[in-house]
Amino acid sequence: MAGNTFGKIFTVSTFGESHGIALGGVVDGCPPGLELTEEDLQVDLDRRKPGTSRYTTARREDDEVQILSGVFEGKTTGTSIGLLIKNKDQRSQDYSNIANRFRPGHADYTYQQKYGLRDYRGGGRSSARETAIRVAAGGIAKKYLEQVHGIKIHGFLSQLGPVAIDTVDYSIINENPFFCPDASKLEALDEYMRDLKKSGDSIGAKVSVVATNMPVGLGEPVFDRLDADIAGAMMGINAVKGVEVGDGFDVVTQKGSEHRDTLTPDGFASNHSGGVLGGISTGQDLVVHMALKPTSSISVPGETIDTEGNAIDIVTKGRHDPCVGIRAVPIAEAMLALVLMDHCLRHRAQNAAVHCTTPIIPGSAK
Amino acid sequence: MAGNTFGKIFTVSTFGESHGIALGGVVDGCPPGLELTEEDLQVDLDRRKPGTSRYTTARREDDEVQILSGVFEGKTTGTSIGLLIKNKDQRSQDYSNIANRFRPGHADYTYQQKYGLRDYRGGGRSSARETAIRVAAGGIAKKYLEQVHGIKIHGFLSQLGPVAIDTVDYSIINENPFFCPDASKLEALDEYMRDLKKSGDSIGAKVSVVATNMPVGLGEPVFDRLDADIAGAMMGINAVKGVEVGDGFDVVTQKGSEHRDTLTPDGFASNHSGGVLGGISTGQDLVVHMALKPTSSISVPGETIDTEGNAIDIVTKGRHDPCVGIRAVPIAEAMLALVLMDHCLRHRAQNAAVHCTTPIIPGSAK
Amino acid sequence: MAGNTFGKIFTVSTFGESHGIALGGVVDGCPPGLELTEEDLQVDLDRRKPGTSRYTTARREDDEVQILSGVFEGKTTGTSIGLLIKNKDQRSQDYSNIANRFRPGHADYTYQQKYGLRDYRGGGRSSARETAIRVAAGGIAKKYLEQVHGIKIHGFLSQLGPVAIDTVDYSIINENPFFCPDASKLEALDEYMRDLKKSGDSIGAKVSVVATNMPVGLGEPVFDRLDADIAGAMMGINAVKGVEVGDGFDVVTQKGSEHRDTLTPDGFASNHSGGVLGGISTGQDLVVHMALKPTSSISVPGETIDTEGNAIDIVTKGRHDPCVGIRAVPIAEAMLALVLMDHCLRHRAQNAAVHCTTPIIPGSAK
Amino acid sequence: MAGNTFGKIFTVSTFGESHGIALGGVVDGCPPGLELTEEDLQVDLDRRKPGTSRYTTARREDDEVQILSGVFEGKTTGTSIGLLIKNKDQRSQDYSNIANRFRPGHADYTYQQKYGLRDYRGGGRSSARETAIRVAAGGIAKKYLEQVHGIKIHGFLSQLGPVAIDTVDYSIINENPFFCPDASKLEALDEYMRDLKKSGDSIGAKVSVVATNMPVGLGEPVFDRLDADIAGAMMGINAVKGVEVGDGFDVVTQKGSEHRDTLTPDGFASNHSGGVLGGISTGQDLVVHMALKPTSSISVPGETIDTEGNAIDIVTKGRHDPCVGIRAVPIAEAMLALVLMDHCLRHRAQNAAVHCTTPIIPGSAK
Repeated sequence: MAGNTFGKIFTVSTFGESHGIALGGVVDGCPPGLELTEEDLQVDLDRRKPGTSRYTTARREDDEVQILSGVFEGKTTGTSIGLLIKNKDQRSQDYSNIANRFRPGHADYTYQQKYGLRDYRGGGRSSARETAIRVAAGGIAKKYLEQVHGIKIHGFLSQLGPVAIDTVDYSIINENPFFCPDASKLEALDEYMRDLKKSGDSIGAKVSVVATNMPVGLGEPVFDRLDADIAGAMMGINAVKGVEVGDGFDVVTQKGSEHRDTLTPDGFASNHSGGVLGGISTGQDLVVHMALKPTSSISVPGETIDTEGNAIDIVTKGRHDPCVGIRAVPIAEAMLALVLMDHCLRHRAQNAAVHCTTPIIPGSAK
Repeated sequence: MAGNTFGKIFTVSTFGESHGIALGGVVDGCPPGLELTEEDLQVDLDRRKPGTSRYTTARREDDEVQILSGVFEGKTTGTSIGLLIKNKDQRSQDYSNIANRFRPGHADYTYQQKYGLRDYRGGGRSSARETAIRVAAGGIAKKYLEQVHGIKIHGFLSQLGPVAIDTVDYSIINENPFFCPDASKLEALDEYMRDLKKSGDSIGAKVSVVATNMPVGLGEPVFDRLDADIAGAMMGINAVKGVEVGDGFDVVTQKGSEHRDTLTPDGFASNHSGGVLGGISTGQDLVVHMALKPTSSISVPGETIDTEGNAIDIVTKGRHDPCVGIRAVPIAEAMLALVLMDHCLRHRAQNAAVHCTTPIIPGSAK
Repeated sequence: MAGNTFGKIFTVSTFGESHGIALGGVVDGCPPGLELTEEDLQVDLDRRKPGTSRYTTARREDDEVQILSGVFEGKTTGTSIGLLIKNKDQRSQDYSNIANRFRPGHADYTYQQKYGLRDYRGGGRSSARETAIRVAAGGIAKKYLEQVHGIKIHGFLSQLGPVAIDTVDYSIINENPFFCPDASKLEALDEYMRDLKKSGDSIGAKVSVVATNMPVGLGEPVFDRLDADIAGAMMGINAVKGVEVGDGFDVVTQKGSEHRDTLTPDGFASNHSGGVLGGISTGQDLVVHMALKPTSSISVPGETIDTEGNAIDIVTKGRHDPCVGIRAVPIAEAMLALVLMDHCLRHRAQNAAVHCTTPIIPGSAK
Repeated sequence: MAGNTFGKIFTVSTFGESHGIALGGVVDGCPPGLELTEEDLQVDLDRRKPGTSRYTTARREDDEVQILSGVFEGKTTGTSIGLLIKNKDQRSQDYSNIANRFRPGHADYTYQQKYGLRDYRGGGRSSARETAIRVAAGGIAKKYLEQVHGIKIHGFLSQLGPVAIDTVDYSIINENPFFCPDASKLEALDEYMRDLKKSGDSIGAKVSVVATNMPVGLGEPVFDRLDADIAGAMMGINAVKGVEVGDGFDVVTQKGSEHRDTLTPDGFASNHSGGVLGGISTGQDLVVHMALKPTSSISVPGETIDTEGNAIDIVTKGRHDPCVGIRAVPIAEAMLALVLMDHCLRHRAQNAAVHCTTPIIPGSAK
């Protein structure tokens, strides 16, 4: 059934296949009066775009987004915003050898089994190309969050195979092709990726997203917790296999006396929680990590079956990222922005009228 | 706004505070004709119940669930099922010292900031006591999944502080107070917990849930992916800080040639994916792990602030689990059952009519 | 699938059958800080209660509502509110003759066909008894609307069979057993009902609900229009077969020059629209009418079939309203309150932040 | 907040303003394997299109729909279907006199108050032009309903001002410009409309929609009743002010002995209920009526206010339908199709597995 809409009161409904006519979507619930242009959205689309560095796929997509409605005289009107990205690079191609085989690690087999048929061209709807519209929609949320609440979202690569970062400097993230915040690791990354490309193999990665200048109070109790919604959003990104908030899996060996963040009159003394307690934001930095599996499309030969169930050999040709984790950075930012905007509006729905909360702690430890 | 309902077409809406009159909920969307008794639900409530071992809180809750509607002559009618668990152990108590202070690591501060007021007795709605209704509702889903689809759900403790399991034997999980599937670790766990209790501290844990005999095809593309919904469900359990599907964070250092599961005429040759590809179940075992933080209520003294923002000392007295992870096992099972049942019904909504899929692979590697 | 929840961000999920253990529900999304007691809800439950006059069924239900959660120290906490009404009058009875026959005009046949089985005692879930929880939940919404926005809701009987009202005086509605706002019709109603009871037959009715002191701007464009949501809510009340907003079916023969309400600097000059334009409230009185069919349970003999498809005679015995329309008045008020409260919160979610609207017209024509 | 999505598991999310770049939408939840072409959708778009007769607006819109995704090799894939209709007739025009005034009977005033700003060109999102996408989406539902369940939907004009139909002949509905099913009224309609056009005024209408070959069992109990959802869908069509199911407002003066439809071994003996009992379809013809107000844009001079609140005179120029009711016929059909398809899928979600119902009554009275 319907599973192409994200969000509860700020919603994004998307459509479009990798090799179809266009990708698009409907963004609904954006407050009126927000200044918005196509350029606002293009920034992140360009960051996500393949072909921007030698470490991402050489496929040219262009990804020019059009706003078809919901913006009038430069401002949102409060009605739904139509987004469209035409697919330009639809090479006429012979798909016959893909059509009847299941690439290992891909959704070919599960789509075929679920639906009984599938658009086999480039993965169809299961292609990472679909995330372009998420990034465009996330751009609207990012602008709103920053303008109305001052919230900023910083995504970055925190590990690629064996190369892990030691420090985080937001200012250099967009200055290198890896979205890496640690200048001292750039050379190691470069070298690792060069060797990897030669081998025809691919590698996993860890990506982090941090929201700064967070308000306290976002998130609903019990089910629609802020951390739960974030976990769902991140695990919903192609190739993600794990999600952490704050200390994540490190808590398994932590003691209570070590983990709990002390509250002081000047704010929290630490941030093991990652900025969420009881599913509600604490006002501290919101810290999220995720693990992305290595690209399954590699030139290393493998085995699989065809649609008749016969064993066959497979070698993926064509243009593929050796590490999908890199390009996932702007996608992860977009998904976090969508979750936060939804929760900002939800919070306002319930909490504005009867009382007004002023944070008890003036500042918050980051 | 509303955040106390879980699921899309099989839904659970819950209410109730830790020290209020009762907990309860409405389970909606259960197909008619399913045999169901209160005993079916009591089994897991008893597994979750505190006071069952010396390692969980001594607080007696009883947790007797009543089915108030939706079942007639022993079978579900297709209408909504009302559930009620009365709170028996409401000790009249002096809460004045809790009322005006924020326990570190708890939701006291965030609830107060979000709502401007809070039910401070025992954490109110943010208490783990609330999960009793999730377990009861999950019991309905478990019964349905097993009877209609043959799906079985196995939850277990896979690590507690430094003690990690080496093997998994489902048959012993319910035979020990730790829900531990590795008999060789029981003594180490026992010893570790005894020392921990003496120290007044608490410890984190890793819990796993596996669904066996899974059908292929569950999960929606793009947003309502099976793994995304599972991640949201698990991160929504009190104290969970991380969620993994399949190899989880291990994929960060894996290569594509290593990670991708080969399809063979006899099924998948491995299960790195944890039973999900492209957000859709593969028919293999569904494998989920989660990290639970150590209990914040410990007798080790700490610092915090009161509701006026003044620094104060705090020592949590009373009956608390030194490891909340243990009791989370039946909760995690329940949440997985709720997700799977919702997706079974969703799958049927869209896919039954126009075609009927027979799995191409007869069996599946586990 | 799930169909027992009403509303989008202020939601009510209900359960319970006519002759089961209890009725209940979960009200979710109520802002914190609203003063609320069980007495607030009991007022309308008592108005709805059967047995209050000789024209409604003599069945004693009592309908004492309990608030089980979500209220602490006299105020809502922002968490979900559990409601419970125990069924007291469960006469042990022989249902064998009802169990295997389909009462004409009732949901017996459709429930049986839909679900394959049904709780045949007193109609089960399809009984009007279920509306008690809607009335209780509506009581919360009514209190909120009046306290926060000053909105008042007035329901009344505007026609019963051939007896139609000429004038509306809100002050007498609760002073007579018909909820009739026209004192000059009370005698005619009394006489009509007396004759009707003798004949053993039943009669239809028209009920109206008016919300006064409405804000401008409630309702979403295109699909979740205020009038659309009201129409759905009213048609969802048992026995309702028609809904009108403003002039309703009279517009079929109206000309544009006659129907359109002129705007003047002092407000609208008329209210043919019933207070809604383009799906959004105008700030005028919101005017809704609905038609309720005559009770199908009558002592006039009829024909029907049994569950085997055989023709049989049927005479409904027992305690039934000769006009269900009368008791529908508080139910219609409750449903309108639920819709309005949901839209108040929805409006706030989207519109509070970026701009703030002051009505251009100071007063509004009623 | 978000209000541009219709449906629960078969959903349509739309965007687009009257004079913007394009209208579009996302249709989600369509089962895979349905044969679908753009021509299938164009049929109803052409029926709805203005300029097809001298009685509807002369504005040329063309309304060519494009399917951008979700269909592969002529069949739906089960993923979301993107729809796009480009706006061709965007005359460069001087809107300055519309921009600062509120047309009476239009949504100008309410949109301005709700959002603080509005796209004033041709009504923006509140324009009936928006319904083009509903008609396109409804075309998908119509095809599904007919192919999979054999359900057919017939919309027609049943009254226009004083001219009411006496008989219904489905075969002539599409043969005349009024969608009138009674050949004997065509001349009267023609004459009435000619006089009306001369006067510069407009007129209301009554439109009916009937679904034949209905299955028994569609509709959920309590809140998501089939009739409730239909009432919401119809009242959500621009200009609709009243909705009836079956006998509608006639029930006000009916007696129970008269209204209740007798069940016989050969089916129902009458259809006062309009094919719905207890919110669930009976298998009889589903009969719905609605009242549409007269067009507010007329050349008869009127009074209104400008955006500063000053009184001004207004005469609407341009191309407008003297009776919007006529073109509402395909829109009403589309909305009914969307509701029925959603309920078909919902029914299947809950009811397919545990039991399978065979109707007790072989045929049904229409």
